[in-house]
Amino acid sequence: MNPEPDYSATYVTLRTSDGAAGHGLAFTIGRGNEITTAAVRALEPLVTGLAVDDLLADLGAFSRRLTGDGQLRWLGPDKGVIHMAAGAVVNAAWDLYARRAGKPLWDLLAGLSPEQLVALVDFRYLRDALTPEEALDLLRAAEPGRAARRARLLAEGYPAYTTSPGWLGYTDDKLVRLAREAVAEGFTQIKLKVGADPEADLRRLRLAREALGPGVRIALDANQAWGAGEAVERLAPLAPWEPYWIEEPTSPDDILGHAAIRRAVAPVRVATGEHCHNQVMFKQLLQAEAVDVLQLDAARVAGVTENIAILLLAAKFGVPVCPHAGGVGLCEMVQHLAMFDFVAVSGTMEDRVIEYVDHLHEHFTTPVAVRGGRYLAPTAPGNGAEMRAASIADHRFPEGPVWSAGPS
Amino acid sequence: MNPEPDYSATYVTLRTSDGAAGHGLAFTIGRGNEITTAAVRALEPLVTGLAVDDLLADLGAFSRRLTGDGQLRWLGPDKGVIHMAAGAVVNAAWDLYARRAGKPLWDLLAGLSPEQLVALVDFRYLRDALTPEEALDLLRAAEPGRAARRARLLAEGYPAYTTSPGWLGYTDDKLVRLAREAVAEGFTQIKLKVGADPEADLRRLRLAREALGPGVRIALDANQAWGAGEAVERLAPLAPWEPYWIEEPTSPDDILGHAAIRRAVAPVRVATGEHCHNQVMFKQLLQAEAVDVLQLDAARVAGVTENIAILLLAAKFGVPVCPHAGGVGLCEMVQHLAMFDFVAVSGTMEDRVIEYVDHLHEHFTTPVAVRGGRYLAPTAPGNGAEMRAASIADHRFPEGPVWSAGPS
Repeated sequence: MNPEPDYSATYVTLRTSDGAAGHGLAFTIGRGNEITTAAVRALEPLVTGLAVDDLLADLGAFSRRLTGDGQLRWLGPDKGVIHMAAGAVVNAAWDLYARRAGKPLWDLLAGLSPEQLVALVDFRYLRDALTPEEALDLLRAAEPGRAARRARLLAEGYPAYTTSPGWLGYTDDKLVRLAREAVAEGFTQIKLKVGADPEADLRRLRLAREALGPGVRIALDANQAWGAGEAVERLAPLAPWEPYWIEEPTSPDDILGHAAIRRAVAPVRVATGEHCHNQVMFKQLLQAEAVDVLQLDAARVAGVTENIAILLLAAKFGVPVCPHAGGVGLCEMVQHLAMFDFVAVSGTMEDRVIEYVDHLHEHFTTPVAVRGGRYLAPTAPGNGAEMRAASIADHRFPEGPVWSAGPS
Repeated sequence: MNPEPDYSATYVTLRTSDGAAGHGLAFTIGRGNEITTAAVRALEPLVTGLAVDDLLADLGAFSRRLTGDGQLRWLGPDKGVIHMAAGAVVNAAWDLYARRAGKPLWDLLAGLSPEQLVALVDFRYLRDALTPEEALDLLRAAEPGRAARRARLLAEGYPAYTTSPGWLGYTDDKLVRLAREAVAEGFTQIKLKVGADPEADLRRLRLAREALGPGVRIALDANQAWGAGEAVERLAPLAPWEPYWIEEPTSPDDILGHAAIRRAVAPVRVATGEHCHNQVMFKQLLQAEAVDVLQLDAARVAGVTENIAILLLAAKFGVPVCPHAGGVGLCEMVQHLAMFDFVAVSGTMEDRVIEYVDHLHEHFTTPVAVRGGRYLAPTAPGNGAEMRAASIADHRFPEGPVWSAGPS
């Protein structure tokens, strides 16, 4: 579905008059950044000139200001380009807030009171699934264990899984070699792309299973390739090789389709979320019992604020969150959400893993550290989105030297 | 939800080397046209240089080319800015096709064979609700009556309803006067905006009902103002005054919310669709029995091609289509879809009405003609989207004289 991606980003920096800055980005896979850039510029008048203290004191109101503009919301509402742009700006504001507090975002969030966290959430369309009172109860129940879990997180890190072995186009030998290397490094879960040739899907899964044995989880990712009925048919011959989950088996909008697939393919789990465009869609995936694994993304919805609501919904329904990452900076950003979830929301890492892809981290000032198959908890202030000045200068489109040099 | 709209459009013209042209537009309510314009420009390389005969011979493939681009689809997929831009371009191609054929779009579509129509549809994510065979059966069943219905349409037109009396902000006297005038003109249905002050909602509905009597349908439109439970509570006191439908009672993405509202408020009908972003969402609204009235829009989804799929889905589920219109050019375009539906798909006008708002028609070369509460079938070639050259020159942003003159 996504041939020839060219990982890109619309990079946002909020600057304050006292010289501080916060960073966020809208991730894309190539062409179209001029569209997301135009969307960020359209939001600029809603941000410029605000008093920083007021803005940071109520990031719920700030998020609603960006997503609720009476004219711009027509372009969504709450979806696609305009929503991704709002997410980049909202994340930049959270980065600014965390830097000002001198804390990594996960720790900042995990230090907010249950009342402060609930006040950030826009419950307008959520109350049939989660009331403010239920969210408060849930956060209060997790409060006594925060300190112990924070210490455990700092000591042990958070489990990761790796997609690196499983790209379509790798030879069978390379697949097996990379899968073995991943397990040797400490990963307990890998992921394979499927959805093109059925025989290749079966052969690759079988090879990986034979190489790794029964103890390693092998997830599959179809990247929306199938219709609902087709997904069930295509998974049947793969089931004996015990895939752990099937990710994006169909359209990311097809809540009822995911629910039907889940009923048919159990015990194979159904996972989705990287293209799920807002909290109302996540709410329904949970209400319809359509997912076993919720894969939120740091840069698709309207930023940290909306992702807090999504984590609360997942906790209410008892569905594990295993964030989508990879791309550009998604690992750096999304780890904060999973770690906050562990410390202050769900309170568990059981059956939870953050996706890890080993590329492009060198462009960030605080790149992720994955050791022995686990993300180490970041300790630098901020949300992880800040890119290195040299990377920005080199890759700025179209005037950066990487572009003006032409195709390599 | 949409205060101070400033009706606008991103206007698209496809030009061929032999001097022909086709027109389409993405409708917005103000700021943000630079974003939709950037999206249309991003699609341009997918269109420029194509052989016109090939393009028009397979508008299904053309539509999939625009929505399926491996990099740009990340910005949706199939939703928001990038999808609206695709819709504008697809609609321009259909306009070109209809002009070349010398027919109004509705008549062109109603002259295609069932096989040709089915070949236009992208069934990838639809087969669990509608198979190509079912679509073919449905179209073939309607085929024998096409000629008679075409004659009837040309003679009698298609029923309209009017939103003009019911805007928030009108005085009670003006509401009653306009409602009476609408009925005197021949309308059998009007619509009132609700969702702000509960007492005002009740008072206005009561005044309209008392003025018009029991025989006139009075629809309500909440413009997404409520959560699902709130919608049920807010409608309860209004029910004795027999509203015909409640439109957009909650988030347009909330399929399960609409289904719950529908179960609770019957016999008041639930209507939605103007913000429904693609055929997968419409499919689920029907599967979940969430709507009594499907309000497709000419410029929200990926154009005529996707709307053919949506009309087929509605016919399969037996749900009447009452298109959204108003704005800029939406009446001009969407009438073609409803009329095509009558002649070749559902085969009926029963409980079907096209929205009508009496503004901005003067900017179009073939403005709608509504007489006695009915849309007269257009006979000019094309899809209705072509704007007058003077209107384009005057309103082009930012250099047009309307803008450079400053606020009036």
